[in-house]
Amino acid sequence: MNKAGKAPTMKDVAREAGVALGTVSKVFNSIPVGESYKIKVEEAAKRLGYRVNSYARGLRADKTYTVALILPSLDNPFFALLADHICVALTKHNYRMVLAITKADPHAEARCIRMIEQNMADGVIGLTYAADLDVNENLPYVSIDRFIGPNIPCISSDNFGGGQMAAEKLVSLGCKKPLFLRIGSDVPGETDKRGAGFVTYCQMNGIEYAAQRFSDWQGIESVYKFLDEHCHRGKLDYDGIFCSTDLFAYHVKKHLESIGVCVPEDVQLIGFDGLKRPETDEFYCSTIVQPIQQIAETAVYILLHGASEQFPGFMSLPVSYAPGGTTRE
Amino acid sequence: MNKAGKAPTMKDVAREAGVALGTVSKVFNSIPVGESYKIKVEEAAKRLGYRVNSYARGLRADKTYTVALILPSLDNPFFALLADHICVALTKHNYRMVLAITKADPHAEARCIRMIEQNMADGVIGLTYAADLDVNENLPYVSIDRFIGPNIPCISSDNFGGGQMAAEKLVSLGCKKPLFLRIGSDVPGETDKRGAGFVTYCQMNGIEYAAQRFSDWQGIESVYKFLDEHCHRGKLDYDGIFCSTDLFAYHVKKHLESIGVCVPEDVQLIGFDGLKRPETDEFYCSTIVQPIQQIAETAVYILLHGASEQFPGFMSLPVSYAPGGTTRE
Repeated sequence: MNKAGKAPTMKDVAREAGVALGTVSKVFNSIPVGESYKIKVEEAAKRLGYRVNSYARGLRADKTYTVALILPSLDNPFFALLADHICVALTKHNYRMVLAITKADPHAEARCIRMIEQNMADGVIGLTYAADLDVNENLPYVSIDRFIGPNIPCISSDNFGGGQMAAEKLVSLGCKKPLFLRIGSDVPGETDKRGAGFVTYCQMNGIEYAAQRFSDWQGIESVYKFLDEHCHRGKLDYDGIFCSTDLFAYHVKKHLESIGVCVPEDVQLIGFDGLKRPETDEFYCSTIVQPIQQIAETAVYILLHGASEQFPGFMSLPVSYAPGGTTRE
Repeated sequence: MNKAGKAPTMKDVAREAGVALGTVSKVFNSIPVGESYKIKVEEAAKRLGYRVNSYARGLRADKTYTVALILPSLDNPFFALLADHICVALTKHNYRMVLAITKADPHAEARCIRMIEQNMADGVIGLTYAADLDVNENLPYVSIDRFIGPNIPCISSDNFGGGQMAAEKLVSLGCKKPLFLRIGSDVPGETDKRGAGFVTYCQMNGIEYAAQRFSDWQGIESVYKFLDEHCHRGKLDYDGIFCSTDLFAYHVKKHLESIGVCVPEDVQLIGFDGLKRPETDEFYCSTIVQPIQQIAETAVYILLHGASEQFPGFMSLPVSYAPGGTTRE
């Protein structure tokens, strides 16, 4: 309480600390001041029992210290890990994370973006598949895995390089006729470059290859049908397969085994993501590993500090290969 | 813009809609009014381009429409699913969810609770293992899986009933000497009742049983050592094991197989959680299934509406048994 018997104000804190009001404001808004000033203000605030009113702070500094993360769901382990790392990275920067899960709701993304317009968040990190995404280019927005527009930073793994790496690995492990298989959304995204990288490597190196793309609405059965049609007396037409994700590779492996094709003896398989089984912490398959933590930390950094020469608005972060039992190495 | 050329206010909306200012306030604060009034206000707001200022709303109605969820992490699939369902349930109630991940940080929970004191959230849903949890009983807080105090609602699965169910199932499937195994935190919690339910069933029914509890700091190796010591010439001293979680059951199964004990032929295993493999959507093991969605929706309902006769402050939600390959049924 101050002398008037009311809750203490920033002015009271400034008087108690013997510093200017602006200094108190800077400390409470996490704007750098000299360490001795910071300590003086914090000690005075503690003595007086002063509590920062976050609304007042939000209004005054035009900041909410809140970032919204838009994800399709948390039941995919890749999304859950990404959310985990983004939340931890934001906390380190003294930001909190509002999580918005879109599921199949086409209005969920628009709702999130309206939330920022209503001053409820300072920015958005979004990983979305909505076909009609309408991002106001003046809003702080960082996109993951999808290029939205030249003024919207986009962070992803090096999908193209990962596709090249998978093709090169299969070839170096002896594959003569590798295949690229993909199933996913019809909305174009950065992850489409996985196949492009694979195809480019094969073309540049004169490798005979095939590439087959399926849409989610066609279902995994259409992939199985394709494999069945290319399997003659227990022998597949291809001796290596690069699958667009790890969980997809898992299903392809199971189906191949069900029709008598052995992995990795007859066909070698490489997935993409680097997911680990929750029960054993082992990879599901040989895989191109995404740097999930680095994607999270880079997205947070660019959202909070803006793109720069060191952190350009379009970043593809390096991936790596990890053997996981579905290749000969 | 209103006539004075400024952004429209609630007063402008009331005039445009031909309703009282209080009616407009109710609509924007989600307080029920007649449907025709609601439509009038919403249409007037749309015509004027009025945007709710969430800060003003937060201050005026003393509400932020924000709930904080405190979880240890998202890398455990149970926590990720719980967060997914809580987020969706809050969205349905027009609330947004701030996610706080505590990891090993003992101060993270205190920080969250301070956030509410600073008016940044209307309440908290917490699933925490911090030993020194200090919850102000006047704060809206709903605890999951841990009883904190008589005035803090606590939602969990029926852990005791689930333990009884596991014992009854093992016995009905022919087990003569069942064992309960547990590894986990030293902090007491509702999940401790899994073992208590198991033991109680065995005692009440004159079943010879054993129960062995390990702490996280002892490590899974201490469990393996215990199993090795109770295995003689390929035969375990027990013919059924109830494990405190599914992922733990998975490790117990792998270890038993590594020392020549077959599951479910020699030993039947039941876990707890009802987790499914991300790659196949199958259970990891025969299991007591937690109603994760119902836990999430009940926690949200009680936080927003308070406990009542229908929704008392301490709820154990019904679990069910599902076979998953580690029992004879």
